[in-house]
Amino acid sequence: MPEVLLIKDYLEQQAEWAAAFQGFDIEVRDWKAHGMREAAAEIDYALVWHPEPGALARLPNLKLIFSLGAGIDHLTGDGRVPPGVPVIRMVEETLTAGMTEYVLYQVLRFHRAMPEYEHNQRRRLWRELPQIPARRRRVGILGLGVLGGAAATALVSLGFDVAGWSRTEKRLAGVTSCAGNRQLPAFLARTDILVCLLPLTPETACIINAANLAQLPQGAFVINAGRGGHCVEADLLAALDSGHLAGAALDVFPSEPLPQHSPLWRHPRVSITPHAASKTLPASSARHVIDNITRFRAGRAVGPLADFARGY
Amino acid sequence: MPEVLLIKDYLEQQAEWAAAFQGFDIEVRDWKAHGMREAAAEIDYALVWHPEPGALARLPNLKLIFSLGAGIDHLTGDGRVPPGVPVIRMVEETLTAGMTEYVLYQVLRFHRAMPEYEHNQRRRLWRELPQIPARRRRVGILGLGVLGGAAATALVSLGFDVAGWSRTEKRLAGVTSCAGNRQLPAFLARTDILVCLLPLTPETACIINAANLAQLPQGAFVINAGRGGHCVEADLLAALDSGHLAGAALDVFPSEPLPQHSPLWRHPRVSITPHAASKTLPASSARHVIDNITRFRAGRAVGPLADFARGY
Repeated sequence: MPEVLLIKDYLEQQAEWAAAFQGFDIEVRDWKAHGMREAAAEIDYALVWHPEPGALARLPNLKLIFSLGAGIDHLTGDGRVPPGVPVIRMVEETLTAGMTEYVLYQVLRFHRAMPEYEHNQRRRLWRELPQIPARRRRVGILGLGVLGGAAATALVSLGFDVAGWSRTEKRLAGVTSCAGNRQLPAFLARTDILVCLLPLTPETACIINAANLAQLPQGAFVINAGRGGHCVEADLLAALDSGHLAGAALDVFPSEPLPQHSPLWRHPRVSITPHAASKTLPASSARHVIDNITRFRAGRAVGPLADFARGY
Repeated sequence: MPEVLLIKDYLEQQAEWAAAFQGFDIEVRDWKAHGMREAAAEIDYALVWHPEPGALARLPNLKLIFSLGAGIDHLTGDGRVPPGVPVIRMVEETLTAGMTEYVLYQVLRFHRAMPEYEHNQRRRLWRELPQIPARRRRVGILGLGVLGGAAATALVSLGFDVAGWSRTEKRLAGVTSCAGNRQLPAFLARTDILVCLLPLTPETACIINAANLAQLPQGAFVINAGRGGHCVEADLLAALDSGHLAGAALDVFPSEPLPQHSPLWRHPRVSITPHAASKTLPASSARHVIDNITRFRAGRAVGPLADFARGY
């Protein structure tokens, strides 16, 4: 009997998943459609995103848990992950490439004053705006992991003046590395366009708050593609409305879908995407899963492993 | 007495020009403020954009003409350029980098369905749209000169499937090269996002026309950052309104500024910028001019030279 892999929301993209696992010795089942109780003991692996609390713990023979997204904050709640089962973070090219696309798009949009050109088009106004060379635009990336590092490197190749801030110092060609709370003020003071790609941990929650926003230069822009929990919405709105911030692009929100009554929807200087900056596609995430299961079966190391003490 | 360089619209950016030529042995004068008649014989060099017809011919001692923009179509009218005076095209990093930024921005905007997300935001609609990997998005660049080549290379580095079309075959890493009228249909048939960066010549005028647009796949996008004369506006509008084209981004127009009555201003699937995709900045264009004048004084080759028979 083949081993069994349970996939969250498998049925939504069944054809893609089936094609992606074609030829690999595993039986794929859907998280919801599968009767969790009677056949729980048959499940060997789970590929999940926001599993119901306790659901993974009811799978007695689970060998590996795969996160469907880049973060593991959806797995850090009480009792989400049974002790002793390794959790593997999703690191795959399509997810990284999609996030680089999103970050480049939003940075170029602010860098080239595109929101103002859109506004002018609605007024039939033909007016050229100043063009600032990329080397004079300081981009600051919160989080220099796989996603932040790739975005930073792409921005450097376009000539932007890029700094990154992370828990520990990172070495990335052309990127000024800032680390820890002590270097956060200097990092913020030199950042015209702030990009958040941090993991959500107790240390990084609410990092986009009034005190930190006030340290950005007048007219700065904020791009949040991390998690909604990184941003204090009221503080962001106040900084936009005071004119201290010139614009924001938000892909993530404390409550998703963004509630209908949120003032962000209609704010003239906010652009909203529905947690769509980048996603894992079945084909490429299946390669990551197949690779790891193959290694696991051969007794070799799997990864990258989530570290719940660190929070990512 | 130092030699004299005449600059078109010098007074609009006088401080930048003065700083850019600081320390170089030349006297800089403004095109308009300078009495053209009495001191015409004193002018050695001219840096121009759309000079009045005949104006350059009234400078009897002119040694070199520099174009302020990438194209030379503003110099090809009757009597614009006195015979025997070399015309040097503007090729400089800032202009190229700015165009690469513009093209990447517009390609990413269509690639990632950003116009649809903007539309959804106005309706407070939270709906994730399909994310297509860059390798499955076919970008086609009309014109593989300095600007087209740089944009193509940047798009290749993001993983897009890039082809370029030009008069003669070009060799660019990762770019499928198509050349001449014979290969235009195949180039168009494989292009999801068409980018025009051609020089305007009798051969390329009106290349974005009904017959060529019809050869693009259903749902294609058009980005024109070449010249307004490349695009037959009525044909583009018809292709948008029939649904054959999904969107267009236009930076250039047959008549600029775009007239108030143009239906393009308010078309829901057209974005307009006011011939602002990229411009030469005084600092970097002055370096190009200084370098060439220095070579000229030393009897060395100058360039890149415009070829009026070829049209660019």
